[in-house]
Amino acid sequence: MNTFEKHESEVRGYCRSFPAVFASAKGAWMTDEKGKRHLDFFAGAGVLNYGHNPDRMKQALLEYIERDGITHTLDMYSEAKEAFIRRFDEVILAPRGLSYKFQFPGPTGTNAVEAALKLARKVTGRQEIVGFTNAFHGMTLGSLSVTGNGFKRAGAGVPLTHTSAVPFDGYLGQDTDTLDYFEAMLVDNGSGLEVPAAVIVETVQAEGGVNVASVEWLRRLREITAKHGIVMIVDDIQVGCGRTGRFFSFEEAGIVPDIVTLSKSLSGYGLPLALVLIKPELDQWAPGEHNGTFRGHCPAFVTATAALDYWTDDTLARSVAAKSALVRERLEKMVRRLGAQATVRGRGLIYGVDFADASIAGKVSAACFERGLILETAGIDDQVLKLLPSLTIEEADLKKGLDIIEASLEAVLGRAVRKAA
Amino acid sequence: MNTFEKHESEVRGYCRSFPAVFASAKGAWMTDEKGKRHLDFFAGAGVLNYGHNPDRMKQALLEYIERDGITHTLDMYSEAKEAFIRRFDEVILAPRGLSYKFQFPGPTGTNAVEAALKLARKVTGRQEIVGFTNAFHGMTLGSLSVTGNGFKRAGAGVPLTHTSAVPFDGYLGQDTDTLDYFEAMLVDNGSGLEVPAAVIVETVQAEGGVNVASVEWLRRLREITAKHGIVMIVDDIQVGCGRTGRFFSFEEAGIVPDIVTLSKSLSGYGLPLALVLIKPELDQWAPGEHNGTFRGHCPAFVTATAALDYWTDDTLARSVAAKSALVRERLEKMVRRLGAQATVRGRGLIYGVDFADASIAGKVSAACFERGLILETAGIDDQVLKLLPSLTIEEADLKKGLDIIEASLEAVLGRAVRKAA
Amino acid sequence: MNTFEKHESEVRGYCRSFPAVFASAKGAWMTDEKGKRHLDFFAGAGVLNYGHNPDRMKQALLEYIERDGITHTLDMYSEAKEAFIRRFDEVILAPRGLSYKFQFPGPTGTNAVEAALKLARKVTGRQEIVGFTNAFHGMTLGSLSVTGNGFKRAGAGVPLTHTSAVPFDGYLGQDTDTLDYFEAMLVDNGSGLEVPAAVIVETVQAEGGVNVASVEWLRRLREITAKHGIVMIVDDIQVGCGRTGRFFSFEEAGIVPDIVTLSKSLSGYGLPLALVLIKPELDQWAPGEHNGTFRGHCPAFVTATAALDYWTDDTLARSVAAKSALVRERLEKMVRRLGAQATVRGRGLIYGVDFADASIAGKVSAACFERGLILETAGIDDQVLKLLPSLTIEEADLKKGLDIIEASLEAVLGRAVRKAA
Amino acid sequence: MNTFEKHESEVRGYCRSFPAVFASAKGAWMTDEKGKRHLDFFAGAGVLNYGHNPDRMKQALLEYIERDGITHTLDMYSEAKEAFIRRFDEVILAPRGLSYKFQFPGPTGTNAVEAALKLARKVTGRQEIVGFTNAFHGMTLGSLSVTGNGFKRAGAGVPLTHTSAVPFDGYLGQDTDTLDYFEAMLVDNGSGLEVPAAVIVETVQAEGGVNVASVEWLRRLREITAKHGIVMIVDDIQVGCGRTGRFFSFEEAGIVPDIVTLSKSLSGYGLPLALVLIKPELDQWAPGEHNGTFRGHCPAFVTATAALDYWTDDTLARSVAAKSALVRERLEKMVRRLGAQATVRGRGLIYGVDFADASIAGKVSAACFERGLILETAGIDDQVLKLLPSLTIEEADLKKGLDIIEASLEAVLGRAVRKAA
Repeated sequence: MNTFEKHESEVRGYCRSFPAVFASAKGAWMTDEKGKRHLDFFAGAGVLNYGHNPDRMKQALLEYIERDGITHTLDMYSEAKEAFIRRFDEVILAPRGLSYKFQFPGPTGTNAVEAALKLARKVTGRQEIVGFTNAFHGMTLGSLSVTGNGFKRAGAGVPLTHTSAVPFDGYLGQDTDTLDYFEAMLVDNGSGLEVPAAVIVETVQAEGGVNVASVEWLRRLREITAKHGIVMIVDDIQVGCGRTGRFFSFEEAGIVPDIVTLSKSLSGYGLPLALVLIKPELDQWAPGEHNGTFRGHCPAFVTATAALDYWTDDTLARSVAAKSALVRERLEKMVRRLGAQATVRGRGLIYGVDFADASIAGKVSAACFERGLILETAGIDDQVLKLLPSLTIEEADLKKGLDIIEASLEAVLGRAVRKAA
Repeated sequence: MNTFEKHESEVRGYCRSFPAVFASAKGAWMTDEKGKRHLDFFAGAGVLNYGHNPDRMKQALLEYIERDGITHTLDMYSEAKEAFIRRFDEVILAPRGLSYKFQFPGPTGTNAVEAALKLARKVTGRQEIVGFTNAFHGMTLGSLSVTGNGFKRAGAGVPLTHTSAVPFDGYLGQDTDTLDYFEAMLVDNGSGLEVPAAVIVETVQAEGGVNVASVEWLRRLREITAKHGIVMIVDDIQVGCGRTGRFFSFEEAGIVPDIVTLSKSLSGYGLPLALVLIKPELDQWAPGEHNGTFRGHCPAFVTATAALDYWTDDTLARSVAAKSALVRERLEKMVRRLGAQATVRGRGLIYGVDFADASIAGKVSAACFERGLILETAGIDDQVLKLLPSLTIEEADLKKGLDIIEASLEAVLGRAVRKAA
Repeated sequence: MNTFEKHESEVRGYCRSFPAVFASAKGAWMTDEKGKRHLDFFAGAGVLNYGHNPDRMKQALLEYIERDGITHTLDMYSEAKEAFIRRFDEVILAPRGLSYKFQFPGPTGTNAVEAALKLARKVTGRQEIVGFTNAFHGMTLGSLSVTGNGFKRAGAGVPLTHTSAVPFDGYLGQDTDTLDYFEAMLVDNGSGLEVPAAVIVETVQAEGGVNVASVEWLRRLREITAKHGIVMIVDDIQVGCGRTGRFFSFEEAGIVPDIVTLSKSLSGYGLPLALVLIKPELDQWAPGEHNGTFRGHCPAFVTATAALDYWTDDTLARSVAAKSALVRERLEKMVRRLGAQATVRGRGLIYGVDFADASIAGKVSAACFERGLILETAGIDDQVLKLLPSLTIEEADLKKGLDIIEASLEAVLGRAVRKAA
Repeated sequence: MNTFEKHESEVRGYCRSFPAVFASAKGAWMTDEKGKRHLDFFAGAGVLNYGHNPDRMKQALLEYIERDGITHTLDMYSEAKEAFIRRFDEVILAPRGLSYKFQFPGPTGTNAVEAALKLARKVTGRQEIVGFTNAFHGMTLGSLSVTGNGFKRAGAGVPLTHTSAVPFDGYLGQDTDTLDYFEAMLVDNGSGLEVPAAVIVETVQAEGGVNVASVEWLRRLREITAKHGIVMIVDDIQVGCGRTGRFFSFEEAGIVPDIVTLSKSLSGYGLPLALVLIKPELDQWAPGEHNGTFRGHCPAFVTATAALDYWTDDTLARSVAAKSALVRERLEKMVRRLGAQATVRGRGLIYGVDFADASIAGKVSAACFERGLILETAGIDDQVLKLLPSLTIEEADLKKGLDIIEASLEAVLGRAVRKAA
């Protein structure tokens, strides 16, 4: 680790929580340089929905490289891109009655968000974007301006403007529909809040602490935005691609966003790729108005196309639903059993345990790492334990991970009790 | 091509100039779905300095994937990253007496620029950044704010603030040292220009029209910035990694920037990767203050490490120098022979032919494509023909490309003459 | 009127509602060029709390001019300024246990607000300012950025940034304490709302529609701001100087703001003057850091000093209280009697009648003008009839004005009924 | 002075340079509370072009107040305003072939500038405003954003955006036409400088150090702005109303600005008043889109109307020209005689002596005060002695003041010599 400490910038982060040098990985398991195996309940922050190095994509990738398939094309046409577009339309869009245009921005989530914000502003001729409390959309200046985290925002070094934060579902307690507030501000031309170009929303705020928007709230947000001519952007970068069970996280609510951003698990293999889906009538880009060098990253198209095989039927979705129930039950049970002051929240295979004592989650994460489980925290004070296993995890591994969490929580609470005593 | 026209957003750009569907590639050649071969003088806008799918990197990449080397690690430690850092330090930094810290941002150039701007603002506590006329640094909001192109800037949909544009070397004619203007504004507290956090500069403005800063101008800029405590950022994304002959484009000027951004040819294979090099005393990031999902993209580390083998001696640099002389001579000769109103500019293997009649460059590019050569235009009015062949191109191929350019230019000027007649 | 239509800009406003050319005025009465007398229930939008051309100030002013007292001194010292400062301290500040520093900005309300915002930002080192829905603080860029009115804001022609609008008392209905929302956003570092430099508030929003903050809400706002180190600015430009009964409008709530802005009725005679009162520990201005040519406008100091004679005892305050009760009773009675869908709101001698049918207020104002009463509307849709008679109005005149309002309302509602029939 | 030190904010400025408490004034003389008379070469920073309390205006003012002429009308019509508009049109506009619309903003210069910027942005639909190095336009946020002084700008506490500073005439030495730079940036869509909504310019930068734009430069600026559809705003607040000889400072150049701002000496008596003159085709304001409480300040209209009597013939203009020649000659002579490293600049009755040693001007100003002369400094380092006597000053007083300056300069340079020795 000396190499990293000596040469890598202080900005490095996750490596501080999980101090191992990783060498290889397969499925739900990561192996470090010393040969130690770690069970992965983090899945690359949502990148590895299909696990590490899944064989189906791996073979397609090896073959493509082997035969000198073109690697880099900027946004010129390529066979690999064509195959992906066709397959995505066939497997994902058409069956859902959706018809979106495809924009491939630079291959990271924040590039996709920046593109979406630009387009919404262009199409409406307005500048303001409404985001939500505790949202996370990325680290470049545009995406950061709709991100809630004060520490990350301060990093901008300049004021983040042309955006307003509105309370997310549940923010003011379960008795208050936060959209009452938003709508009141919106219809009053004296409120100081302009009608925005767009609203950008995560259906489940992952970084923000696993905050789950209700189906009703999402539907009302869709109605309000439609009524006022506001572009509705669903940022499905972290919880799309099956994380909540179906391919898109908004399907359950029965809504159709105007723009959808995807990245993370899109390539299915951990290769950088991002996609902006745009309702055809909003596709008012001029050629080259937004660009980026690596938007035509063909190996990622190859694995992304292969990954779509998971979505030709509902096998994966049903499996996620079953695992989701298992996780929820276990978490609620362990919280009760151990008398933890904590709330369990989640959908599909993203779960959070929100502790009243904000220091607990970090300690549990550290205790899990000692026991061979990679598990992150989330929320503004890192007060939430965030479970994000791959969707394809074996049930036995899932249970093993939950066992480790329970043991770790017990140990932490035990220590906590001892300290208080 | 129907798939693209039907499904892909209007934002697509290069595919309109080069309407072919590419399938495979090797070295300086791209092959389309119909089997037609195209000689590549564009090199993925600077991504493919070592040509398409170079075998040395290819083998390393295949082996890594084959053995399930870990693909995605966020910014956790990995063997692949460690090997890259060590090798880059050993081959590039140490021999040049440089000691930079490594920051891996999201794997695109614009993410690197955003990180550099943030850090410069943090370190200095100032907000203003000075960029140059006709600069290009990226499409996300922060990078766009230091980019000159009015069309791209308008795409932001919001004002681009906290930046000022200062004339690049040569902007006001060869008799005016534009740094006189910059320095006058800087030392006068009544000028309306604050002392900025940073100056960001390309030593050769590629997108801006192949504008080449002189060695003297770069040195003076380094002196001015040092004197006023301004962070000097060299954006070496397009002309670093050997494009101008040596690894860094600023080596010839004998200066040491405070921050250097790299991407494009860094992975050597067209895989997305970006790097911010930071003087140790400026590495004042807090952990996680800037992040990004794909900053630990291990296959790219693997090829990037293999690519460094090119830099263990000066073979490549000498080869580039020889090819550079050849290109310059041929271009100047053809311009003279054909009586074109044009200026030839360039360094290393980036050359521009700037036509007085702005419409000519686009016509020549189209004529080249018909003749099997991929060649882009640059400059605010696309008035500059931009030559960007891979550094490893065979001399025969280089000459072939130059022949095509000459034939195309002759054809276009012939047509132009006929029109005028 | 031809002169005005021919030469004056289209921006002129009130003259369109009250199309007469005024020549002279005394007390509550204005006389136009044709000799017609108009009863004034507008009081120069709060400038004429002591009526037009009150004799006490008039004599002092005439004597000062007659003896060539210095008129203009920028911010050099003058006898006139010294007398004002002493008298204001003696009559207003000391008896209330207040010790503020005096800053005289340019002599308009918006200049005072701009100074207050600058100082709050300097003292805290923060940039964000929180204002309230339907606030009005002025038309220069800084003041406009905390003003709610969308039409006025759009007039800026640039985005209004570094400010957030928070719901004013009662904005979300009587069951919701809007400060719950503000405090939730404030304590959550992930909310996207920074801890602001300052909160700026009117205790009664005059332009915004005569919205009255409760004493409890103001106290809680003072507590929240104190707790979080936020500068509390009370903008008492329109409802200070006795409009609500006591000299400062916030006295009733028993709070002490950090900064208070005054203008309008401060000079007592309609002469431009403005004052920023600053808690001594916040007086961190550097000399000349904020300036303005007319900040030393001595004739206004002279009348302002004379006006303070009204405040040596509580005669005026008691008189306002009595008139307030009379106005409220009459308004509520007429609304009931005529079956108007309207709410009566107010404090001291500022009252609003807020009609469910937004078109009524304007019609009543026009009908009043025909009957010899000057009476304005307020609120984002001009839906509120705003009563703002001078504090010193004779009771008979007050009743006469109320009679005219009642007759006008009856006529308008009668017409409305006829239309509906 | 205890009252001021105890109660007035630290922001007070000029009183520190001229520590006297002024009581009365007449013509070119100010009398302090101790009866000491001070000769005034500052003229209220340009407010008192006709001297202190000129009798013609004084009588009109006294009569108006005496007969209860209406004092305050917001922007309702008044006889006093009508008389002013008519007289200004008759005496100033019509004879010069000008036809501007009149907008009366809040009665300070900065309010006029804010209105002008808003209107230019509205009319063009653009946001950027170009100002010049060392410009001074006011202290509210909009005006400050086109002001050069770094200390004043920092006082904003927020970034000042949507503006760019371009070098004023002579800024880069006498051999460089700074408009070459501006025009190059303007025509190049890749320069990073948008075509702005407006250019705002002072023909003589007073606060900025008495920098005089040449007639040729002003004409070229008018041509460039006309060609590119840029609104040309001349801020004539400090050097209009006769300061340079003719009523408007731009008359000598023979140009017609699109918008002109006036204030300071407009009322002729030191009473706050401001005026924006707008070409009729640009008068695209909506009613009430910009407002301000004291825009209808009738006593100021009364004195402003009386002041126009000075402009019915060219007596004043000729007198200013004669005094200008006298001042220039004396200043140049004394600089030569005393061997000062200094430059004399000026037009009409605004003159600056710019010392190479920046500390001298302040010492001379202090030495003048000791000798009974009020004289300010200007320029970013207070390096310029600024002479701004009233236009109506007696020749004997003018000479007396020049004598004091010479004596003071001699004394200061003597001391300087001694120190160096």
